[in-house]
Amino acid sequence: MTQLPLFPAPPVQPLSGPTVRMKLVVAYDGRGFSGVAPNVGVRTVGGTLGLALERVLRHPVALTVAGRTDAGVHAAGQVFSFDAQAEGLDIEALQRAVNKLCRPAVVVRSAEVAPAGFDARRSARARRYRYTVLNRAEADPFLAATAWHVEAPLDLSALRLGCDPLIGEHDFASFCRKAPAREGGGGGSLVRRVHDARWNDLGGGVLRFDIDGSSFCQQMARSIVGTLVDVGRGRRRAGEVKGILAARDRARASQLAPPHGLCLWEVVYDG
Amino acid sequence: MTQLPLFPAPPVQPLSGPTVRMKLVVAYDGRGFSGVAPNVGVRTVGGTLGLALERVLRHPVALTVAGRTDAGVHAAGQVFSFDAQAEGLDIEALQRAVNKLCRPAVVVRSAEVAPAGFDARRSARARRYRYTVLNRAEADPFLAATAWHVEAPLDLSALRLGCDPLIGEHDFASFCRKAPAREGGGGGSLVRRVHDARWNDLGGGVLRFDIDGSSFCQQMARSIVGTLVDVGRGRRRAGEVKGILAARDRARASQLAPPHGLCLWEVVYDG
Repeated sequence: MTQLPLFPAPPVQPLSGPTVRMKLVVAYDGRGFSGVAPNVGVRTVGGTLGLALERVLRHPVALTVAGRTDAGVHAAGQVFSFDAQAEGLDIEALQRAVNKLCRPAVVVRSAEVAPAGFDARRSARARRYRYTVLNRAEADPFLAATAWHVEAPLDLSALRLGCDPLIGEHDFASFCRKAPAREGGGGGSLVRRVHDARWNDLGGGVLRFDIDGSSFCQQMARSIVGTLVDVGRGRRRAGEVKGILAARDRARASQLAPPHGLCLWEVVYDG
Repeated sequence: MTQLPLFPAPPVQPLSGPTVRMKLVVAYDGRGFSGVAPNVGVRTVGGTLGLALERVLRHPVALTVAGRTDAGVHAAGQVFSFDAQAEGLDIEALQRAVNKLCRPAVVVRSAEVAPAGFDARRSARARRYRYTVLNRAEADPFLAATAWHVEAPLDLSALRLGCDPLIGEHDFASFCRKAPAREGGGGGSLVRRVHDARWNDLGGGVLRFDIDGSSFCQQMARSIVGTLVDVGRGRRRAGEVKGILAARDRARASQLAPPHGLCLWEVVYDG
């Protein structure tokens, strides 16, 4: 169950002296958060984490995030970068203290000093999103928070066929919310490169979709899953996906898959 | 996240005509429930399920439960029995309707007609409880609901050695809350037979403890896990477990392991 970290805004001093660029790998349960980007008046992952960091470091913290996950979307390997004052910095103690403030909904899995120019968003070479579907008649209380329960039987071959047209570089306008560019795309372009997209049957009705790409525009992963699941249940044909993509028309895609099945699994950097 | 099923107490008619004995296998997320046994004024799994059954069947339902799990304890394979009016009974429709009322926290995994004398509690030949420990420095937001996070490193060999004295028939008074007999034990006896108890390392810091027994007295599984984890972290020696058991003195056992790591995994019946 997500819990609100109960601590007041910390007293901070301006940053002074030399700084180091920090990299955090963070997991979170997206329930109860209005997305990841800090935002005034709402509880976000970035806001919660930033407050905790400022409380421990006692200086202002400006977080950069690798993947701007939507409200309710989880992360196993989200990455944040920020500058920390070098003097007196104890990274292990920082990680422990921040985790004490943020747990159990947000956990810093690792904390390390990154090269000076490192930027969680711009330095990322690829992102992997994972979507979990529970495809059987009965629900599972222990998957309720992390899997989309689809009762209608899905055809795994059709799901897989439907992936093929997505691989490569395309304008994903049909699968993206029209919004300012995110995750490294310039000038509002919705052209993205998908390296791989595949469905695996884990048994027990659990189907897992992994999609790797250079970057993702807003709602892209959920829009693709929503469309593929319509293919899997026979409402649309796998052959239609190519045409939906080519149309560059958001009205052609199916409804978004719900956020709680989605998890930002990993962000990949060079080196 | 557990949610309250929002439905009023149903209007019921007295049972009339022939009845059939029903057997339900039920999974539930124990968070938000004050245990399984129906109890006036509190939200319990049995109370929630009973109300849902009565609402669908429109006659009173008296549930018998295989294992009376404590507040906060989960179940993957809890079993309930009750009598249903035979006339017009549609078991598949009953399961679907009850699941719609109770999900996502409570899910009826299967529903079937049982032999006439079947009693979920008395007919049970064995029960398996499973306890999950996350043993590493960092928490995991996705295991927060179902695993006990123990930061201190545990010695798996010691955990395993500590299990050995538990196998067989013993008076488990050292590991049980003094209470009226439950689960088929007669006259307040705390003698129980443990068939097997073992720890497995699932990787990633996840340790799983499975304990099979004829039946379990109250708090027995959690008390055993609490004591073994003290052995695993070096606070007690594995060799002490035999003496703790022989003492038949509750003060000798360690603190209870928290309920959210425990799950009633399976109830075994003949045939």
